[in-house]
Amino acid sequence: MVNTLYLPEIREMLAANDREELREFCTALHPARTAEFMEGLSATEAWEVLLAAELSTRVEIFSHFEEHFQQEILESQDRDEIAELITELAPDDRVDALADVEAAIVDELLVKIPAEERRDILRLSQYPDGTAGANMTTDFAKLGESLTVKEALDEIGKQAEDLEMIYYLYIVDDDNHLRGLVSARQLVTAMRQPNTCLRDLMKTDLVTVKALDDQEEVADTVAKLNVIAIPVVDDEHHMLGIITHDDVIDVMQEEAVKDAHQSAAVNPLEDSYLRTHLFTLSWKRGIWLSILFFCGLLTVLVLQRYQTNLEQWTWLIPFIPLVISSGGNSGNQSATLIITALGQGHISLSDWASVVWRELLMGLVLGFFLALFGMLVSLWIAPNFNGIWVIPLTLILVVISGTLTGSILPLVFKRMGLDPAIMSNPFVAGIVDILGICIYMTVALLILEPVAG
Amino acid sequence: MVNTLYLPEIREMLAANDREELREFCTALHPARTAEFMEGLSATEAWEVLLAAELSTRVEIFSHFEEHFQQEILESQDRDEIAELITELAPDDRVDALADVEAAIVDELLVKIPAEERRDILRLSQYPDGTAGANMTTDFAKLGESLTVKEALDEIGKQAEDLEMIYYLYIVDDDNHLRGLVSARQLVTAMRQPNTCLRDLMKTDLVTVKALDDQEEVADTVAKLNVIAIPVVDDEHHMLGIITHDDVIDVMQEEAVKDAHQSAAVNPLEDSYLRTHLFTLSWKRGIWLSILFFCGLLTVLVLQRYQTNLEQWTWLIPFIPLVISSGGNSGNQSATLIITALGQGHISLSDWASVVWRELLMGLVLGFFLALFGMLVSLWIAPNFNGIWVIPLTLILVVISGTLTGSILPLVFKRMGLDPAIMSNPFVAGIVDILGICIYMTVALLILEPVAG
Repeated sequence: MVNTLYLPEIREMLAANDREELREFCTALHPARTAEFMEGLSATEAWEVLLAAELSTRVEIFSHFEEHFQQEILESQDRDEIAELITELAPDDRVDALADVEAAIVDELLVKIPAEERRDILRLSQYPDGTAGANMTTDFAKLGESLTVKEALDEIGKQAEDLEMIYYLYIVDDDNHLRGLVSARQLVTAMRQPNTCLRDLMKTDLVTVKALDDQEEVADTVAKLNVIAIPVVDDEHHMLGIITHDDVIDVMQEEAVKDAHQSAAVNPLEDSYLRTHLFTLSWKRGIWLSILFFCGLLTVLVLQRYQTNLEQWTWLIPFIPLVISSGGNSGNQSATLIITALGQGHISLSDWASVVWRELLMGLVLGFFLALFGMLVSLWIAPNFNGIWVIPLTLILVVISGTLTGSILPLVFKRMGLDPAIMSNPFVAGIVDILGICIYMTVALLILEPVAG
Repeated sequence: MVNTLYLPEIREMLAANDREELREFCTALHPARTAEFMEGLSATEAWEVLLAAELSTRVEIFSHFEEHFQQEILESQDRDEIAELITELAPDDRVDALADVEAAIVDELLVKIPAEERRDILRLSQYPDGTAGANMTTDFAKLGESLTVKEALDEIGKQAEDLEMIYYLYIVDDDNHLRGLVSARQLVTAMRQPNTCLRDLMKTDLVTVKALDDQEEVADTVAKLNVIAIPVVDDEHHMLGIITHDDVIDVMQEEAVKDAHQSAAVNPLEDSYLRTHLFTLSWKRGIWLSILFFCGLLTVLVLQRYQTNLEQWTWLIPFIPLVISSGGNSGNQSATLIITALGQGHISLSDWASVVWRELLMGLVLGFFLALFGMLVSLWIAPNFNGIWVIPLTLILVVISGTLTGSILPLVFKRMGLDPAIMSNPFVAGIVDILGICIYMTVALLILEPVAG
C-alpha cells in the first residue's frame, strides 16, 4: 500500500535540491513510516532522498522498504554507493535484499564489498529458503566465559552500534562452541558486582535450533519460550547465528498467508497479489483447479451410473448440490479444526481415537439438525410417505462421512510424514463429494425401490 | 500435547518427598520445557513440585503452563500460597490466568494480594478481550527526562529484577505523559558520557497504540516496526503500559487460527479442540452449517424451476456438481487471495478496478482451461453437435462468475467496514452456487432449445 501524502513535498525538495530539508524529512519520523511515504517515488528519486541522509539513517529506512522496491534500487543506482549501503545492512536483511537482484549485478556489487562482509553474504545465502539459516543474522554479541561483568559491559558498549541485538550475550569457548547466555538484564543487575565472571552468571539451559530446521518450527519454538532471539548452531554445537523476534514475526505472517492460500487450493505466492504475474497466478491456481476438476469428473461418472434412477425419481435431482455441499462443508470444518489443532500441538497422532470418536458424535449431532430442516422440506416436496425419509437420512450419513473423512485424512497424512495442511483439502473435497452421491443414491434406492417395485 | 517422559521420576520424588531433587528438576531445564514435562501431573502434584522451587522459578514455570492447567491450580490450591504466586506473576499474565477462575475464588484471592497489585489487576481486567489493553503489561521501565545516563543505569540496575522488559526505557513527564524512549542499547553506548541527560538521548518519533485498539492491528504495527515492545497510551497520551514482542507473537498465533476457522465456517474456539465441549463445538459449527444449508436450499428452488428442462436433457444432470464446484473453487481461490492481500496491506480499496480486471482475466484463462477438459468429456457424452458446447461454455462463464464474486465481495464488505474474512466465505459459496446453476441452465436452453424446437 503506497502512501502518497508527502509525495508532492518530497518532489519539491528534490527539484530544489534542498538537501537540508531532505535530511530532516529522513529523520523526523520513525524509519518505518518514512519508508512508507517514500514508496510512491521512483527508485532514482528515493535513492536521491536517501543520499541526503546519514548512512545509518539511509540503512534503516532502506531496510523498511518492500522487497521489490529494494531490488529496484539495488539494480538501478550507482554501484559504489549501493555497495556502501549493503555493507552496512544487517546480515540477514542484505541477503534477503540481494536474493532477487540479477546475478551479474550481484557480482559487480560483491567485489566492491569488504572481504569479511562478502564472505558473510556468500555463507548466509547458501541456506535454502524457509530454513532457520535463511532467517538468521550473524551480528550478535559473542563473548568469552572468562570475562567479568565490567569487561563485558565495556565490550558491549564498544560493539553496540554494529550489532543487531545486544540484549542477549552469547558465551562461547575458544572453538566457538555455544556454552551459555547472559542477558543484558542480568548484566545490568550484576553491575554492583563488576568483577563477577560471566561463567558464573550465564544460563546454560539454552534451547537452540539447527541451521536447516524448518522456519515454522523455529517460530513455534520461539513463541513457546518468549525469548527475544534463539541461537542457531550446527551439529557440533558451533554458534552460527541468531534469529531475532522480528524475523520470527515475519515468518509467522508469511506462514499464515501460505496456510490460507493452501487451504483455498492456491499454491502460495512468492510476491504480493498485484505484483504476481497473471501467468504465474494462473499456474498456481490452475494446477489445483484442474486437480479438483478431475475429482469432480468422478462425480459425473458416479451420477451417470444412477441416471436411470434419477430419471425415475426426478424430484431427487434438485437436491444433489445441497446433499453434496452439506458433506463438503462439514468435512471442511473437521479438516480445518484437526489441522489447526495439530499445528498448535493441541492434539497429536496418539489422540486419533478420541478425535475420530468426537467427530463421529459431531457428525451425528450436526447431521441430525440438518436432517430436521431437510425433513421439513421433504414433507412439502416428496411424492409419497417413504420419500420423506430419503433427504433426512441422507443428510445424517453424508455429514458423518464428512466429519470422519475430514478428521481421518489429516491424521493419515501427518502419520505419513506429509504436511496435513497441503494435502488434505482437495482430497477431503473429492472423497466427500463422491461419498455424498453414493450415499444419496443408495439411500434413495433402498427406500424408494420397494415402493416402486 | 502432554509430555509424559519424566512423569514417573517426578512422582517418585514426590512420594519420597525429596524436595532437594524436586528443586533441581525445576531449574535444570528451560522453564518452558519444565512446564511441558509437568502438565501430565495433577494440579495438586504440580503445585507440590513448584513449592519445592524458589518463588521466582515457580512463577516462571507456572507462566508457561497452558491456561486451563493454570486455572485448575489457581482454583484448587492453598489461597495464601496462590496469592503469593499471583503477586509475582507478570501483570498481563496474571490477568489472563485469573480470567477464567471462578469469581468467588478470585475475590478470596484478591484480598490476600497487596493493594498496589490488586488495583493493577482490577484496572487491566477491564479491557475487553482482543484489545491492546488486554495484552499490555504495566511492568515497564519509566524514567524522568532530566536523569543522566549514569543515574538511569543505576535506577535500571535496581529495578531490573521486577520489570518484565528493561530494554526500552520510557521517558515520561511529571504528569505521566509519554515523551520519548531511550533503548538500553543507547544507554550502553552512551556509558562513556555518563552525564548525558536522557532528554538529549531519547527518540521522540515513537509509534504508539491506544488501549482499545484491535490486537490484530497492534500486531501488524509491531511487525512493521521491528520493535521489542510498543507503548500503549490513552487519548491524552498518558503512558498506560507496553505490549511486548512475545505477546505480539501470541496474538498472531491466535489470529491465524481464528482466521483458519472462520474461513472453514467455524466460529473460533476459545479453548483447544479436545477441551472444547461437544455442545459448544456443535453450536460453533452448526450455526454456519445451517446458514450454508439454507443457501443450499436456494439451489434446490432454482433447480426445480428447470426440472422439466433437465427431464428433457437428462445427460446434463450428472454434470451439475462439477459445474457448481468449479465456480465454488475458483471463487474460494479469489476470495482468499483478496482477503489475505487486504490483510497484508498489499492492496487497498482504491485498487478495486485493477483487482476486478485481473480477476476477470484470471477467470477467462482458468475457465478456458477447464473448458478444454470439459470439451473432451462433452465429445464423448453429448448427444448432438450443439450439445458439445454446453459444458465448455458454462465452465468459462461459471469460473468467471466465481472469480468476480470472490474478488468483489471481500472489497464490498471491507468498504462497509465489516471484516472481509468473516463475511465473505458463506456468501461467496452461496452466490456462486446459485449463479452456477442459472448459468448452466441458461446456456443449455440457449444452445439446445433451438435444436429441440
